[in-house]
Amino acid sequence: MSEQRTELGDLGEFGLIDRLTKNIELVNSSTILGVGDDAAVISISDDEALLMSTDMLVEGVHFNLMYMPLKHLGFKAVAVNVSDICAMNGKAEQITVSLAVSNRFPLEALEELYEGINAACKQYNVDLVGGDTTSSFSGLIINVSVVGRAKKSDITYRSGAKEFDLLVVSGDLGGAYMGLQVLEREKEVFNANPNIQPDLDGHDYIMQRQLKPEARQDIIGFLKELDVVPTAMIDISDGLASEILHLCKASNVGCHVYDEKIPIDAKTSMTAIDFNIDPVTAALNGGEDYELLFTVKQEDFDKIKGNPNMTIIGHMTHANDGIYFVDKNGSAVTLKAQGWKHFE
Amino acid sequence: MSEQRTELGDLGEFGLIDRLTKNIELVNSSTILGVGDDAAVISISDDEALLMSTDMLVEGVHFNLMYMPLKHLGFKAVAVNVSDICAMNGKAEQITVSLAVSNRFPLEALEELYEGINAACKQYNVDLVGGDTTSSFSGLIINVSVVGRAKKSDITYRSGAKEFDLLVVSGDLGGAYMGLQVLEREKEVFNANPNIQPDLDGHDYIMQRQLKPEARQDIIGFLKELDVVPTAMIDISDGLASEILHLCKASNVGCHVYDEKIPIDAKTSMTAIDFNIDPVTAALNGGEDYELLFTVKQEDFDKIKGNPNMTIIGHMTHANDGIYFVDKNGSAVTLKAQGWKHFE
Repeated sequence: MSEQRTELGDLGEFGLIDRLTKNIELVNSSTILGVGDDAAVISISDDEALLMSTDMLVEGVHFNLMYMPLKHLGFKAVAVNVSDICAMNGKAEQITVSLAVSNRFPLEALEELYEGINAACKQYNVDLVGGDTTSSFSGLIINVSVVGRAKKSDITYRSGAKEFDLLVVSGDLGGAYMGLQVLEREKEVFNANPNIQPDLDGHDYIMQRQLKPEARQDIIGFLKELDVVPTAMIDISDGLASEILHLCKASNVGCHVYDEKIPIDAKTSMTAIDFNIDPVTAALNGGEDYELLFTVKQEDFDKIKGNPNMTIIGHMTHANDGIYFVDKNGSAVTLKAQGWKHFE
Repeated sequence: MSEQRTELGDLGEFGLIDRLTKNIELVNSSTILGVGDDAAVISISDDEALLMSTDMLVEGVHFNLMYMPLKHLGFKAVAVNVSDICAMNGKAEQITVSLAVSNRFPLEALEELYEGINAACKQYNVDLVGGDTTSSFSGLIINVSVVGRAKKSDITYRSGAKEFDLLVVSGDLGGAYMGLQVLEREKEVFNANPNIQPDLDGHDYIMQRQLKPEARQDIIGFLKELDVVPTAMIDISDGLASEILHLCKASNVGCHVYDEKIPIDAKTSMTAIDFNIDPVTAALNGGEDYELLFTVKQEDFDKIKGNPNMTIIGHMTHANDGIYFVDKNGSAVTLKAQGWKHFE
């Protein structure tokens, strides 16, 4: 090993990935796209391609078994992978599940986990086709890999957004983050006094957003029905701000995103205010909503306008114009990401 | 969670997998085969299929960083996945790599790991097309998923062996296990007195078998050149005995395997004798050789006979005849597996 020591915390997740993948050489003609989007793209025929992605969930980093039921965890592990295929405008078809698990789990616990995995497979019409099961000396680790399919002409890359395109988001944002805040608060209360029952009343919606996120496969269906092929797409795992920056960087465009347009559910807002958090901050920087962020051509405006499942939150500009967040007073500030930071 | 508690150690790895996968329902017509072979099989055209597999390597379970250089670990993580595709008689084309890593690793350590990953990709003509990198509060975990391709008519399942087929193994066996014994011994010596240099002299071959196993992609090429399509195939990750039992069970056949035919390198034998281990026991029950075990029709005997890369070690019988190990004196005993046992 060389003498040099560069701390991972100084690089951040994306800096690390850039460093580790810079020497990759692609040799197979079937590889259309490797690292750098929500999924890799692999040619399987003249007009069809396979989409491939993978996600690892680590106990203590991505989930806490103190409040994450194993069934929900299984569901989520599949949903976040299906979401990656949705973000390419494709249909997930097969998954594999790798599991490292310590002896402290009985079979019944793993059966609960698989109940969630099977429920998600059923919901998204995905087949569980393989996996690996091994022991672990520490926590539970789940790695799901997914393959999906799309017509080559339908595939949406992060890099396809053009100046003047509209920026659209599905569903509403910030709920998963506020759900996590409530769970963390109740965990603290429980740790201080295990006799106090957790108070999750009225928090059903944001609990579900955190504990059982859905892949927006329905949006992919709606877009097909509307005959809209997005020019670019990404799923929102790290917070809206971070994903907008990814889209703009990959597409080499700028963006104006409007504070007042960002869709936030009333329950998310109320909880945020309770916690002295600006709801828009929760939407911009809270992660794990797994909504889809995409761009469409101006001429598709009429097809999208007023659709209850999608909200136009901004538009793309020339790269030189920068990436701006426009607040309710019309003041524009440069958009910054403060999403999930691993290795810190 | 239910009140019942079934310990994972009582089930074993294969018992656990059986229990967890028993409720799987396959819904996509593209899924030709799910769980149960070295790789899943997914249809991509009338005559071609995709092969998909995944393997997780866990620090402290599958490797010990005290003697496993990170570069070798990266190579091995790819090689064991490529081996799964070889075991289906296919060609690996793309992989994803998921990594959970603690802050104690500097960037330079992960760059070493990726050097090994990239070296294996180059050797096997595989493209690294995606992954996930996250933090871990404990050890290093690597999950590699692989997709490969094969003509549907070339794919070899575990289930295709027939009575009278010949049982063939590539390369030689037991080396990886004896390499591990030497490394474990030197670790003990080092732990007792860190000033003593490890004594690995003369153990190059078995060290390499343990630390840098190769996927036998070359064997797949040789078989094509010989115009032999095996009737069944599996790779040897858990020891010859365990894999023979898997093949026989999946194919519903019996088997006679001959002690004196089992290929063992002289260096493996000498080390085994040094350790008071029967070399054949190392071959039968030591894992991680990643050689290929396959069956061919009697009529292919002339094509295989005398080939330095393959050894005929037995033949398949009727299921009712049982699975026997025939020793040098001609005595037959029922073959038992004592391969790797996780969860114990």
